[in-house]
Amino acid sequence: MSTVTFQFGGEGEVAIIAATGEQLLEVARKANVAIDAPCSGNGSCGKCQIKLLDGALASGKTRHIDSDAWQAGWRLACDSTIDGDATVLVPDIASAYRSRMKTDLSSPDEIAIFESMQAALEEAGLLRLSAVREFELRLEAPTLSDTTPDNERLARALRTALGVERVHLPYFVVQKLPGVLREGRFMSRCIYEIHSGAIEVLDLLPAGDSLPLCGLTIDIGTTTVSGALVELPTGKILSKATAGNAQIRFGADVIHRIVEQQKPGGVRRLQKALTEETLSPLIDSLCRGADVPRDRIYRMVVASNSTMNHLLLGVDAEALRTEPYVPAFFELPPFRCSEIGVELAPSAQLHLAPNIGSYVGGDITAGTLASMIWRGQDLSLLIDLGTNGEIVFGNSEFLIACACSAGPAFEGGEISCGMRATDGAIEACRIDESTMEPALTVIGGQKPVGLCGSGIIDAIAELFRTGVIDGKGKFIRDGRRIEQDEFGIGCYVLAFPEESSTARKITLTEIDIDNFIRAKGAIFSATLTMIHSMGFMPSDIKHVAVAGGIGSGINIANAIRIGMFCDLPLERFHYIGNSSLAGAYAVLVSEKAEDCLSSLSRSMTYLELSVQPGYMDAFIAACFLPHTDGRLFPSLAPLSK
Amino acid sequence: MSTVTFQFGGEGEVAIIAATGEQLLEVARKANVAIDAPCSGNGSCGKCQIKLLDGALASGKTRHIDSDAWQAGWRLACDSTIDGDATVLVPDIASAYRSRMKTDLSSPDEIAIFESMQAALEEAGLLRLSAVREFELRLEAPTLSDTTPDNERLARALRTALGVERVHLPYFVVQKLPGVLREGRFMSRCIYEIHSGAIEVLDLLPAGDSLPLCGLTIDIGTTTVSGALVELPTGKILSKATAGNAQIRFGADVIHRIVEQQKPGGVRRLQKALTEETLSPLIDSLCRGADVPRDRIYRMVVASNSTMNHLLLGVDAEALRTEPYVPAFFELPPFRCSEIGVELAPSAQLHLAPNIGSYVGGDITAGTLASMIWRGQDLSLLIDLGTNGEIVFGNSEFLIACACSAGPAFEGGEISCGMRATDGAIEACRIDESTMEPALTVIGGQKPVGLCGSGIIDAIAELFRTGVIDGKGKFIRDGRRIEQDEFGIGCYVLAFPEESSTARKITLTEIDIDNFIRAKGAIFSATLTMIHSMGFMPSDIKHVAVAGGIGSGINIANAIRIGMFCDLPLERFHYIGNSSLAGAYAVLVSEKAEDCLSSLSRSMTYLELSVQPGYMDAFIAACFLPHTDGRLFPSLAPLSK
Repeated sequence: MSTVTFQFGGEGEVAIIAATGEQLLEVARKANVAIDAPCSGNGSCGKCQIKLLDGALASGKTRHIDSDAWQAGWRLACDSTIDGDATVLVPDIASAYRSRMKTDLSSPDEIAIFESMQAALEEAGLLRLSAVREFELRLEAPTLSDTTPDNERLARALRTALGVERVHLPYFVVQKLPGVLREGRFMSRCIYEIHSGAIEVLDLLPAGDSLPLCGLTIDIGTTTVSGALVELPTGKILSKATAGNAQIRFGADVIHRIVEQQKPGGVRRLQKALTEETLSPLIDSLCRGADVPRDRIYRMVVASNSTMNHLLLGVDAEALRTEPYVPAFFELPPFRCSEIGVELAPSAQLHLAPNIGSYVGGDITAGTLASMIWRGQDLSLLIDLGTNGEIVFGNSEFLIACACSAGPAFEGGEISCGMRATDGAIEACRIDESTMEPALTVIGGQKPVGLCGSGIIDAIAELFRTGVIDGKGKFIRDGRRIEQDEFGIGCYVLAFPEESSTARKITLTEIDIDNFIRAKGAIFSATLTMIHSMGFMPSDIKHVAVAGGIGSGINIANAIRIGMFCDLPLERFHYIGNSSLAGAYAVLVSEKAEDCLSSLSRSMTYLELSVQPGYMDAFIAACFLPHTDGRLFPSLAPLSK
Repeated sequence: MSTVTFQFGGEGEVAIIAATGEQLLEVARKANVAIDAPCSGNGSCGKCQIKLLDGALASGKTRHIDSDAWQAGWRLACDSTIDGDATVLVPDIASAYRSRMKTDLSSPDEIAIFESMQAALEEAGLLRLSAVREFELRLEAPTLSDTTPDNERLARALRTALGVERVHLPYFVVQKLPGVLREGRFMSRCIYEIHSGAIEVLDLLPAGDSLPLCGLTIDIGTTTVSGALVELPTGKILSKATAGNAQIRFGADVIHRIVEQQKPGGVRRLQKALTEETLSPLIDSLCRGADVPRDRIYRMVVASNSTMNHLLLGVDAEALRTEPYVPAFFELPPFRCSEIGVELAPSAQLHLAPNIGSYVGGDITAGTLASMIWRGQDLSLLIDLGTNGEIVFGNSEFLIACACSAGPAFEGGEISCGMRATDGAIEACRIDESTMEPALTVIGGQKPVGLCGSGIIDAIAELFRTGVIDGKGKFIRDGRRIEQDEFGIGCYVLAFPEESSTARKITLTEIDIDNFIRAKGAIFSATLTMIHSMGFMPSDIKHVAVAGGIGSGINIANAIRIGMFCDLPLERFHYIGNSSLAGAYAVLVSEKAEDCLSSLSRSMTYLELSVQPGYMDAFIAACFLPHTDGRLFPSLAPLSK
């Protein structure tokens, strides 16, 4: 047996005993060290790079690691096995995905975007009437001539005060009843909801308690989890936080997660990765940020894709990925958070934004609610660029939704130097046509660590605009930033080691570009197929809401230039950020929004692209810069030949 | 520090480290060794006798232990402190109360009594319509053209099959849904309830599962806990069991328990004594007896006095014993068993028989249901002789109930050689008028261990009939079985050491007789006060149902002879055993019985004896054999002067 020590660049270390021959990636999983492994360890993505600092590993040579990097000790964790004691560095680029809490890095731009969504929801009357309310109760103290028991005394007072006939006290409130009532001399603070004509008491606090009455809104993405602690019923956001989804170590996309949960104990393991390793520290951080204890959180609203909400509930998700793709549920009534092991107030209930299909989940229905595309007569699109791509098309009269297998490229997945839109990510770039030198915009202003989705769009658009690459994404110019590896694969060096935060080159390779072209081709062809399926043309679209983790820096002109979005006037596009979180927020603070989401989701039609005639042809035609059919991009005519 | 070892007469031992000067009774509590201590350790009851086998104890001399016994090593645990290592024997007479599981010792008589109650409930239509039912479900398998999610598919099928519109699936059923449906090829066994027009799914089992669908009925007495595992919906009793209430080590009666729960952590400690130390082994035994796993138990019905049900729920019971005597609840809606830490099927709910006052609890309301006194026009009494005495009076038009401070004498408490009606208890006795020699009937047929309630009644009645004692309970004859201790207190020796199982004398002392006379006086005066309060006379009573742990051997004529029951024709009395368990059983197997119990308990009036004019005088007058007013017992005229 050998001791394997994982280091994180000055942030402590983790040691574990492992057997000779064990795969390092597997050893890391056992040690709960999350190494980014989007391909789940089959050697194809090259993302699970670690650096051998001391000791020995038996590793395979791979095209993902050049000779210099190999010399420096870089190895793939999936292609290394234990061969004695070893100390390895888990590098920054992987730690961007590590399941650690980060306070929310939202830029002022992103906050402004969220607030404008709040304003739109408010204007639509969707932010009023929180279900969770409170009441200062003053009961008559019992006497020998009025020996009504505590529970009936409380119910009697609530009925009188609120004019509602039925009152239900959950067990845990009964349990604390004699104490709270007598400590407060029969004055108390009662937290309750009213549902279908009955008062549900959520908590009873001693008189004088003045901590805020809170709710949680959480967006669980395949890669990133974002949350906000909200004061009820005012709707004020008390704290915000974002964390990596700790399931990332089981694979980058939902398919890999489902494969992983099929292993013995897998469902429970993936559930715990979400509840214990992701949500629990996230909630702790939110509570610390607002100085509110967990037991003052009375409601949690989660928006997430179908796989994530199945796994959050510990429900076998296998049927989501096998024909006929039938989930365990679309919509569920609320149930206690404690049932999935999330400890808030004992009465706190989990509300899930409803799914409408195996691949169009609560994140999309909640996002649709927030996008407001369902409100007017104008034909609109919602394009959500998460770890997958989902598109909703319609207006107040109809809504259809589809999922396209765009993969995780928009969040930096399947891109060798990709990362999500957080500190150190190149979010925008321009390339000088003559020198081919780049001008980079990096989140946080530091030296770059990698590229996020909006940065990749810019880089590809600029390489194409400057003639560095052709319509197929192949390099057709030479220069000091254009290199070829030993396998003949070209790449563009965005940052040399001395220009980067990681002291390693940041490049965009032909493989990356190819992956991204397939991703943008999937989005574009899905959009077109959807519009055509309803008998419309792209030019009929009046509004395009772009949502997701691609970053607020997205350059729409560049996204059109590479043929990702339809060629429409720029003013029709709006980046709306995390619409899923905004929709969940609305449901948290407003009964009306919850009802609206429920009926919205029931009225949405799921379009299964794979059975749409012509979809595959449309996809293949879209895998070109900007498109094989230049007529679809009239504004680019001078460039697109 | 010293090592104290507790032995149980060949049934293993328990050792614990204790400090010099610590009270042995307290040390025993810490070691979880239950030594019967009805007076909670104040030295007055003399029950906590242990035998010092080895080592040293610092003990006080006490009237409860005579010189021979002292010589043999007998001490009071409450009056002994640690003074070095010691090994002590916890004797049989205490172990009768120890919190160990015993299979039910019910005699054929008691089974017959229970069955006759079942028959009466059946005849009243109260044993039909179990709320918990099952259904063999056969769902259409999903296809690409019918991708309805599992939960909606299940709900759709249930709606069609049962003609009920609303269907609710709890979280844990959703969690297992995909697995169970696909394993059984979309055939399954659905366990459900129908409540106010909605189907509540309780469980979903794979097709072919054939284990019985079960419920639990439990009577939690202050001293004894009895339970039965019942097949739903047939009502068949699969197993029965009885255990001592493990709270006994905190005191014999409810007042001592409430005092104990006021100490830090006391509420939780007393709750755990019930849930973990009493109910859990009882349920295990019931499940073993019927070869049924716990997770096939879908409902638990508990009948218990107000203090027991408050403590079972972990609710502070202090307000029950302090003016104005206001409980936290009378009636509660059902809630999950898991909320109080009793793990059955995840959906299993606890139904509590409702209380009507601080001292008239669910055991009495359930007992009233089973007694059937509420059914006809005839005026009837239910006299429940448990650890306390409760009396219900009325008919189909009115019901009033009261509690009298009879103390635990009927279950053998506060009687020096008292015990409950279990193996070794003298349950009946006759005394020869000339020789004064007794003829004893012992439960189980062995040599006697002590006296249960019916045995005490007989002994006192016989001593009175034979002129051995006078109307005040003082000894007025001499003989070889009549002794006086060093304090001049007389006693009758029912068994000399060689005649007893414990190799110690079994006696009935003047103090015992005095205690019992006060207990029977409380019952009689309460009965009379109640009858008079409604303007009736004892002779108006047509039926008297006698319930409780006094034992099926109760000799009614003797109970009348000592002035415990009204002087009515014997055929008007019926011993109905554990009516509380029978009532809980009815509620378990029948929705109609539950509704009936609920309305019954709401219609019952609680009579507070202590504020009834004349009650104290009536009590004092009744503390005589049979009564100071002989006219109340005309049939005894020749004996009562």
